[in-house]
This record gives sequence, C-alpha cells and structure tokens, in this order.
Amino acid sequence: MADRNEAAGDDRKDVVRAVLATARAEGRTALTAPEGKVVADAYGIPTPAEGLAECADEAVALADRMGFPVALKIVSPDILHKTDAGGVRIGLGSSAEVRGAFTAIVHNARTYDPTARIAGVQVQQMVPAGQEVIVGTVTDPTFGKVVAFGLGGVLVEVLKDVTFRLAPASAGDAESMLDGIRAAEVLRGVRGAPPVDRAALAGLIVRTSQLAADFPEIAEADLNPVFASADGVMAADIRILLADGPVRERRRYGREEILTAMRRLMRPRSVAVIGASTEPGKIGNSVMRNLIDGGFPGEIHPVNPKADDILGRKAYRTVRDVPGEVDVAVFAIPAPLVPAALEEVGRRGIPNAVLIPSGFAETGEHALQDRIVAIGEQYGVRLLGPNIYGYYSPWQDLCATFCTPYDVKGGVALTSQSGGIGMAILGFARATRTGVSAIVGLGNKSDVDEDDLLTYFGEDPHTRCIAMHLEDLKDGRAFVEAARETVRKKPIVVLKAGRTGAGARAAGSHTGALAGDDAVYDDILRQAGVIRAPGLHDMLEYARALPVLPTPRGDNVVIITGAGGSGVLLSDAIVDNGLRLMEIPDDLDAAFRRFIPPFGAAGNPVDITGGEPPSTYEATIRLGMSDPRIHALVLGYWHTIVTPPMVFAQLTARVVEEFRARGIEKPVVASLAGDTEVEEAAAYLFERGVVAYPYTTETPVAALGAKYRWARAAGLL
Amino acid sequence: MADRNEAAGDDRKDVVRAVLATARAEGRTALTAPEGKVVADAYGIPTPAEGLAECADEAVALADRMGFPVALKIVSPDILHKTDAGGVRIGLGSSAEVRGAFTAIVHNARTYDPTARIAGVQVQQMVPAGQEVIVGTVTDPTFGKVVAFGLGGVLVEVLKDVTFRLAPASAGDAESMLDGIRAAEVLRGVRGAPPVDRAALAGLIVRTSQLAADFPEIAEADLNPVFASADGVMAADIRILLADGPVRERRRYGREEILTAMRRLMRPRSVAVIGASTEPGKIGNSVMRNLIDGGFPGEIHPVNPKADDILGRKAYRTVRDVPGEVDVAVFAIPAPLVPAALEEVGRRGIPNAVLIPSGFAETGEHALQDRIVAIGEQYGVRLLGPNIYGYYSPWQDLCATFCTPYDVKGGVALTSQSGGIGMAILGFARATRTGVSAIVGLGNKSDVDEDDLLTYFGEDPHTRCIAMHLEDLKDGRAFVEAARETVRKKPIVVLKAGRTGAGARAAGSHTGALAGDDAVYDDILRQAGVIRAPGLHDMLEYARALPVLPTPRGDNVVIITGAGGSGVLLSDAIVDNGLRLMEIPDDLDAAFRRFIPPFGAAGNPVDITGGEPPSTYEATIRLGMSDPRIHALVLGYWHTIVTPPMVFAQLTARVVEEFRARGIEKPVVASLAGDTEVEEAAAYLFERGVVAYPYTTETPVAALGAKYRWARAAGLL
Repeated sequence: MADRNEAAGDDRKDVVRAVLATARAEGRTALTAPEGKVVADAYGIPTPAEGLAECADEAVALADRMGFPVALKIVSPDILHKTDAGGVRIGLGSSAEVRGAFTAIVHNARTYDPTARIAGVQVQQMVPAGQEVIVGTVTDPTFGKVVAFGLGGVLVEVLKDVTFRLAPASAGDAESMLDGIRAAEVLRGVRGAPPVDRAALAGLIVRTSQLAADFPEIAEADLNPVFASADGVMAADIRILLADGPVRERRRYGREEILTAMRRLMRPRSVAVIGASTEPGKIGNSVMRNLIDGGFPGEIHPVNPKADDILGRKAYRTVRDVPGEVDVAVFAIPAPLVPAALEEVGRRGIPNAVLIPSGFAETGEHALQDRIVAIGEQYGVRLLGPNIYGYYSPWQDLCATFCTPYDVKGGVALTSQSGGIGMAILGFARATRTGVSAIVGLGNKSDVDEDDLLTYFGEDPHTRCIAMHLEDLKDGRAFVEAARETVRKKPIVVLKAGRTGAGARAAGSHTGALAGDDAVYDDILRQAGVIRAPGLHDMLEYARALPVLPTPRGDNVVIITGAGGSGVLLSDAIVDNGLRLMEIPDDLDAAFRRFIPPFGAAGNPVDITGGEPPSTYEATIRLGMSDPRIHALVLGYWHTIVTPPMVFAQLTARVVEEFRARGIEKPVVASLAGDTEVEEAAAYLFERGVVAYPYTTETPVAALGAKYRWARAAGLL
Repeated sequence: MADRNEAAGDDRKDVVRAVLATARAEGRTALTAPEGKVVADAYGIPTPAEGLAECADEAVALADRMGFPVALKIVSPDILHKTDAGGVRIGLGSSAEVRGAFTAIVHNARTYDPTARIAGVQVQQMVPAGQEVIVGTVTDPTFGKVVAFGLGGVLVEVLKDVTFRLAPASAGDAESMLDGIRAAEVLRGVRGAPPVDRAALAGLIVRTSQLAADFPEIAEADLNPVFASADGVMAADIRILLADGPVRERRRYGREEILTAMRRLMRPRSVAVIGASTEPGKIGNSVMRNLIDGGFPGEIHPVNPKADDILGRKAYRTVRDVPGEVDVAVFAIPAPLVPAALEEVGRRGIPNAVLIPSGFAETGEHALQDRIVAIGEQYGVRLLGPNIYGYYSPWQDLCATFCTPYDVKGGVALTSQSGGIGMAILGFARATRTGVSAIVGLGNKSDVDEDDLLTYFGEDPHTRCIAMHLEDLKDGRAFVEAARETVRKKPIVVLKAGRTGAGARAAGSHTGALAGDDAVYDDILRQAGVIRAPGLHDMLEYARALPVLPTPRGDNVVIITGAGGSGVLLSDAIVDNGLRLMEIPDDLDAAFRRFIPPFGAAGNPVDITGGEPPSTYEATIRLGMSDPRIHALVLGYWHTIVTPPMVFAQLTARVVEEFRARGIEKPVVASLAGDTEVEEAAAYLFERGVVAYPYTTETPVAALGAKYRWARAAGLL
C-alpha cells in the first residue's frame, strides 16, 4: 500500500541511489539532513514538510498544502541567530496567523539588520504530538539487514524495550513488532490516550526496512524520534549512515545440492576411513571400531599406507585405491596431512569429508583452514568440521566417531558446535534412552553448517525434532530460511550459547547501540519459529520430550493432581510457559466431581486429593482424554500406599494407549512426587509417550510449553 | 532527619489522629484533599504550599516564603469559573509579577462580576518540573503495611516496574528501593538530565511508610504523582483511604517460648503415638514401625485403648497412663477423635502435638480446626499440622511419619506445606543421598509455622541450610523477623508456590492495584535475605548444594574448562546468576598459560582445551585454589580417554581436600560433559564438597549463585 508521497519502486531507488552517490563522491558516510529528507520522501517515510516562501501569499499557500500548525523561520545568510532577530514563529494555526507572522518576521529581520540579504521565510510543518517511538535499521553481522522498533525515551534507552525483524519486514512482521515490545499496551492507548494509528506505524516500519534491504550500503538508519498518534506517524529526525566498505555476499548452495550431499552423508553406503589404524587408543582405530561395532551394514574401507588389513577389513594405501562409489571419507589424520588427502578425496569424487582432526582455525591455523575450504570448493567436496567428534546416524547403524557407539534409534536429531557439548548430548541420551536419528558435530563449520543439516533433517522421515547447540551462525539468513521451511514440519530447538558475553557492539546510531547480539538473535530466532532453550539441560529435555508428545489441537490445558501442592506449582509453571489453564465448563466440572471426594476441588487444577485409589486417577484421566474440549493434560501424581508409583504409571500408560488406538492423541505430561520408586515410574511412562519427571513440577510443563510454542509457530493452533 | 515542616513525633500523630477522627465521624473512608495536605504537612511530605492573601503585600510575602514560581487564583464563593473571570495566573516568577497579578486578578474579578464577594487570592506554590514517581502504602494481607515506589506513567502502569518494602522502611530500605526498580538508571539522570535528589526521595519514602506504620487504620496512601528533581521532591497529589473495620493483630509467641517448644519437638526423649496400631497399612502402625525401625533411642509409647502391646512396646489405654515426661504426642486417629485426645494431651502437660490426620480446614472442616486450635492455646500445646505426613529429625534417628524412614544425617532442614511436595523432598533426598537435619510437614499450619521452625533451625547446630516450600504465610512479619535473624547464620531457600495465580487484588488506589501478591512476596522475601527458588527442583538442588559449599570470601569467579563450548555456556550462567567473572591480572594469566597449550585461551574462562591429561586439570585447579585473589572456581570437564571422568573427579576432590586441610576453602562447582560415567563422577565429587552435575552447565552455577546471594544477604561479602 503505497503512501501518496511514495515514489514508484524503480524511481525511488534511482532517487536514493543519486543521493548516496553524491555522499560517496564527497567521501561522507553520513547523509545530511536534507539528503535524509529526500530519501525519506522517496520511500514514503513521513517527515515534516517544508518549503521556502518569498512572500506572504506563498507562505500561506505552502502552509495550506502541508497542513497546520506550521513554524516560520527567516532564511538569511546574514542572520545566524534567528530567534534573536525575531525571525522565528511557531505553532501558527491559521492562514491569517501565517500571513501576520510572515510580515512580522521579515519586518523584525530588517530592523535587526537592515543590510541582511533575505532569501525568504521557511515554512515548516510542525510535528504533531504523539507517542514517541524509534524505528531503525542496522546491519547485523549474522543476519544482515535488520529493522528495529521500540518506544522512545527511557523505555528504549534504559529498559532496552526494543524488537527486531529481518529486513525487509512484511506487514505481518511489522504488526508483530508493535505487539512484540513489553510496553506494547502503550500503543493501544493508556491513561485515556487514544490508540496510535497501527497501520501507519506498521507501514513506516515496512518502508524503512525496505529501504535498508534495497541498499546494502546503508549500514544504519535511525528514525528517532518518530511521533505516532491516532492521526498517523511522523519522523521528526532521520539519520542515515553508510557502510565503509563494499558488502560481501556469501556463496550459497541450492536446496537440491544440499539435499543430495547431505543424503549421502547421513545415509551412506560406503565409508572410507583415512588414517584408519590398528593401534588401540588412536582416533583412526576408534573410528574403525565404532563403525564395525556399531553394525554399519555398508562398506567400510580403511585407508592407511602402512597396513594391509585393519580390524579384519582390507586396507588401502590411498583413497584412490578404494573400489566402488564412496559416499563419505572420514579423516583421522593430523591436520597438516589433511590438504593432500582432501585433494585425493576430491579427485576420487567423494562428496563428503568428515574432518575429525583439530589444529585448524580453533588453534589459530586459519590459513590451513582456508586451504581445505578452497580444496573443498574446487572439487565440490562438502566438509563437516574440522575439529569434531564425528557423527552418528543411528537408523543406518552408523557411528562415524571416536566416541562410544550409540544405538537407540528414535526421532531426535542433535547437533553441536562444541565437542564437549556433543559428549553431554551422548551421555544424556544414553542415560535417558533417548531415541536419536542423528548426532552431528559441527566444530569449526568450515563448510557444512546448521542450515545444511536443517534442510536434510526437514526431509528425513526418521527425524521428528531437531535440537542444535550453536555459538554462532555463519549465515543467519540461510539458517532462518531453512528453519522456516523445516518448522512447518517439525520442531527445532536451539541452544544459543554466548547470550550474555558480547554485549552491545560499538555503533554509530541509536538503533545500532540497541542491537546487542543476543537481542537480535532472540527476536529473529523466534521469528523463524525456533524454540530457544534457556540452557543445555533444557535443550536436552526438550529434545527428549518433543518427539514423544503428540501435537496439541487447542489451547485448553487441564491439570489433574493428587497433590494439591503440586497443583499450585503446576499452575505456576503453566503461566510461566505461556500456556492456558482451561476454564472448565459446568457440565465438565460436574463430570469430574463425580469421581473425586466431596472435599476435593474440581475447577482447574482438578484436585482428586491424596488418598485416592487408582480408580480415581484412571477415571479422571479417562475423562480428560475423552472430552474433546480438553487439549492437553498435566498430571500431578502423589506417591501413596493406596496408589503406588508403578500402579499409577501402568494405568496412565494404559489409558493413553487405549485412546491412541482409537485415534485420540493429546499431549500428556506428568510430575511425580514421591519416594525413589517414582523414578522408575517416570521412565516407564516416558517410554510409553507420557512425558514424566520425578521431583519436579517445572520440567514436564516446560516440555509441554515447548511443544505448544512449536505448534503455534507451525501454524497448527 | 526531620524535615523543617515535620512536626515532632507525638504532635504529628495527634494532628493525624484528629483528621482521621473527623473523617470517621463523618462516615468517610477517604480523606479530602485539604485533610490529605494536613496529614502530609504533619509528616513532612512536601506538597505545594498555599495560602490566602487579602492584599498584594500579603501575596508577595506568601510567595516569597514558599518560593517561586507560584500561581494566583481568585477566591470567591460567587465565581465558579475562575479562568473565565480572568482570575487565574500561573508561572509567576518574581515579587513584581505577583504584585501585578494580584492587582489584575482582583480587577478582572470585579469587572466580571461587580457584586461578587471576594475573600482574597490564593497563592499556590507551583510543582517544579521533575521525574514523575509514585510513592504509596498498602495493607498486605500477609505482610501488613507495605510501602511501594516506582516511576510514574507508563513504567509503573504498563510495565509494573514497582518495588515494595515493609513499613516503616529505614533509610537504607528506601535507598535500596531507588535501586530496586528496573528503570533505576532514570533516577541517576539520563538524556542529559541531572540526577534526582536521592536523599529527599528516600526521605519521602521513609516518612510515608512511617505514616502507614503509625496508623494501622490507614489502608492505603497514594502520593501520585510525585515530582523528583535535583532540587528535591514534591507530591502533587495525596490520596488516603481508611480501613473499613478494625485491624486485628495475631497472637505471637516469644523467642524463648518458641525455642523451648521446638527443642522438645525436634529433640524429644519420649514420644507417645495416639492411635498406634498393630494392623499393617494403618497410619498408626506405620508411625510405630518407622519410629522403631528408624532407631529412635528415646522412649516410644503406643496409645491404643484395645491393645496391650504394639510391636513389642507396652501399649497404654490413654495418654494419661503413659509414664514419665512426654515431649511429643503423634496423632494417628481420625479427625473427629482429635479434640478429645488433644484435651488429654493438654492435661497431661505434653508440649507438642503432631497432627497427622486430615479432615480439618483443608476439607472445609474449619470449625473442627478452630476447636483444636482453641484447645492447644488453652493448654499451651503447640500443634504441628493437621493434615501432614509427620516429621523427620535424622540426628535423633527420629522418623515420626507414616512415610518410609530416612537416615542420611546432614545439614539441610526441609519443610513443606504440602504432603505431595514432602514426598518429593524425601524421594529426591534419598536419590541424591542428601544429608538432612529435618524434614517437617506443616500442612494446615493451624499453629506451628515457618517462623517457629526458622527460629529453631537458626539455633540448631546440625542445620546449615533451611529450605521451605510454602503456599502462604500466616504472619509475614513474624516470618521476616525470624528469617532476618536466621539468615545472618545460615541460608534460607524458599519455594513460594502460587506465584502466578492470584493476580492483582481489587484495590482502591493505584498502589493497591500494583501490589499483586507475588510482587510483594518477591520484594519482601528478598528484603529478608531469603533465596527464592524459581521451582521445586531448584529448591531441592539448592538445599542439597548450599550446605556443601564453603562461603565465598569475594566476588572473583574463575572458570577452568576443558571444553570451550562449556566455557561459553558457563559464562552465560555466570551472568544469569548475578556473578562476576574475574578480570584476570597479567601475572595470573601468565601463570595459567604455563600449564595450557599455546592455542588454549587464558583469560576467563581459562580454556585448557579438550585433549589435556589429568596433570593440566590438576595444575590449573591447584593454581585456582592457591591464588588468594580467586574466590570461587567453576570447572567445566570434558570426557576424554586421556582424562576419564573418575580420574578428573578424584584429582579434583584430592586437590580441594588438600587445600581444605591447609585451611583454604573456596566454593568449587563443576559441570561434567560426557558419557554416562560422568554421573558417578559427579556423585563422587558432591560427596567430597564439590557441587558437580552431569549434562548441565546451568545447575552448578545456579547453586554457586544461590550461595553468593546468601553471603551477600548475610553481610559476608
């Protein structure tokens, strides 16, 4: 929806291009105020109208056109202090006032300095009162052009109440920004103020973001302050900074290229191990052993110039000698030997190199890493790593790693940038028997990164949830693109490390100063539909729980609890996780009441009280599963002699399974309060699709909350 | 520090008392504006000065006294619309202006209505510009008189950026309130504004809180807005609401009374079990069995009218027949039988009744509960419960409960309001082998509550940390008093359930509407020095960790990590928990560098890199322990073949023990990333004083953060 003042697409670009060219030619990286106004006009960004009047009639005509009130200011190269000269009048509300002011100003000026040359009088539209807001764009090192929005003044300066989206932002993005700040209510009108014109404000955000997207060389743009009222919006000031150097674009692979390579990586038929070794303790020996012990059914070809046979497999001097088509070459040789071997892999037409060795960028050997990247690009070999533990693809019985094997097949694909975190993933998975579709080390991410794997996992039928530990993104836009595509099909959990360290970067504009790395990450990851885990343990628990939980079909969550105390804590957790306790209709309330003691509490939580037999748990859970108005159940179990933990676990699993067989699936989570037997009961439930934890009321609800967040991001609610 | 305008203590009370009496006599619960001003003046709360001038000289004199600028307004019973009559002038900045304005106003009024009776001209001090803030008091159902402070406008209305303290607030409390809001920076001056006069603002808070404390019948007081500037503060409006009915005070026990009763409860020599039973499955049987199996060395007297012998102990018909002095009577009989038995306990002079049965207030039987409370008060019997699982006092080998016994003696005392949460405490403690000094069920808290137990645990030499689950406090002030006393000696962890449910209560004032239950709880618990656990699992982990960790002696935290990835996440956790990563001095940096590979990173985290042998972990941990500038260590272990988990655990425990033997104690926490063997290693470390967890970087740092919060609250840092 173009503004009246807005130039057509190409025209406006030409206008701005000319302004930027002038600034560049003059060696400036900041636009002047008049240049800013030209740019703003071209993109339909409302700023105060202004014009030069040489006579009172012209001043009145200008004021009429721009709308009242206006300000008049004398324009004379000889009068520096306009106010002292009586050369300024503000708040003029009518033609008559303008006419009078023009005459007075010119008269005052002449009196002040009879010799002054008078060019005329500037007529300037006055910015209407309104809520002060800030709109700006910055160039984020990870995500590129990003648009920011916040309320002005102390809210944005002190409380950093600001929100970010990728530029260009859609109208929907912009609307979500108006709701995305903590003080969003202010825009809807508080203290008797009318709501601001949301469409106008969203339009301003959209157009500003489009400007940044159209001109990569605009490093930062600040509209600050913008005044937003019921009548519209106006930017009182616009500040535009240009980038110092040229803007680089990173090389990208197409979706099909990515999928072809990743399929061969994750589902190989033939693997070569470069640096395979007979010597226990060597990485090349561990990798061979894990491939064999893991039960990989494809071909395993050890490569070692000094051995004929390794762990019963024929060894080859070089990868050139390996027969047949090879999908993956796993490198277990020292870093300095990698380039030569990688050349051979390239010439041999092997599409994937898994680079376990360290000794590259992470130890300061940037040149060595650049060299292998160049070789990879030259031959079209995708590089995983270097500096990784390898990877697991359990459905292929593939353990291409020097760590211990892992064989519990399941629905979660995990990746980690760090080896230590990879080991934590492995240990946690084993301890909890989490079913896994992949564990992949990404290390230095010299080539293959999260968006490549997301693209593949999105298509992989075994993968039902993706969890990624990352410290940075090489290409935030590619990640967002892949994430958006994938989130429609399955949840993505991200643990972004380094949240708090970086702080705000040095920046030339207000918006730039606000765009601390994590603030941008947080908003953009949310915009991409990703579930952000607050910590490592949360990521692991979400990864374990999400594939187990069915997708909720509505917002009505009901708590059924034997312990009133758990009910209160579970209710707290419901609110903390953005979920909604169902308001129980009277008929449903009555139905629950039939099963619980008279002093128990229906409503929500449904408190069946502590001393109840298994039949009460069963009847109420059954009602919760059968009533179609209820969309998710949170169970609070209390260990008693009357209903021991395993009895509760078995009856709950049975009821849930029974409904599942009838095609009725709802997420059910459980908090088990009791003696240590509840641990076994929780494990039993988890294996049967009920996400259950002992000694905590928070974790089961957090897992349910993560599932809901995904369902909303995927448009399923 | 009394304000010039402030009346002396008794005088000012007389003044206010008279005002309140008048309002009461007229059946009003709100004071008029002039009444509000009288109260404000009495308590030195600056409001605009005003006075009536009958001539220009008087007007000038008044203005001189109150300070410029002033406003003048005609005072006439016949002129309703003062402005229309030309009877108002504002912003008068000098004596001359005042004099001129007086003459003009009177002249205008006479012109407007020649017959009007003119009483004079009101001279009113104008409120100086400044930052808008709000100060108020409310009567909280839990904590009584509470004072609130926030910035005005959208910050307090939309963002609820407001903080609370008990009234009367000390000058220190008030100062902490200025720093306790999120937008605190505003008061220090932003956007070029000078900082506000903090002493004046704090003084205003102190005096307002004193007013509320002096007059229980003042339900709410609102100073809104108050303008605070570099020159002082002024309340533009004051609104005072009176309580509808008389204010009740709860009966309290003295400290020595409490200690005497609690010592006999927690360290009894003789216990009677009323309702002891031979029949397995009965509560009276379980209690007997647990007392005996738990190894309680004192006397155990079953009371049962139908048995001669229960589990090998002589049974008595009634508690009257039990020989010797009895410290505790445990009740295991149905609720309706409790009053009669309690009477006997009272007559028998037994000081403590442990009321396991349910069927009292929690099932709607309020009258029955009131009755036992009355009996308890009559005979001086303290009541624990009813509706509880009983209690454990492990150092006495006492398991007075129907749950399973627990015998791991240690330093943490746990209480829970809910039975379900009590069972979770028990299960968690057993699973983690947490050393316990007490587990107490509080249930309906008809009498004994948290402040009684806090008072005892504060004195108990075995107890080194107290953790309490609570849903409400019967007497918030008694709790705060007991907590403040205890926190100086040992940490208190509180899990306050029902954080999110209550929402803001209906209230007559702005401050009242802001005082949502949890907002007040949160601030006041912090004021009392209590560590608030965000959830059940956190409370349990803090309870387990705090007695194990030595108290830090300074703020310098150093991370030593084998996994760079863990280092980043641990750094995030450091910031999240309000801790400070030490800035490593050059000499210390050089000392660390001597032990780590050239590509490892010193600084903080100290990244020793992943492939290092045990000697590198040992040397760096040893350096961390020995350098007196380092006050706490956070270790990030990465499972490798070179340094397996138990090797790391043993070397770490050994180094820590070695320094402990030399009198050097620092808190050391560890995050273990690795395969499942890290679980055993973490348990090994925990038992040896290193708070270690597998698969998480958050929990160890959260535990350290809790210890630091306590150390700060206790004034040890």
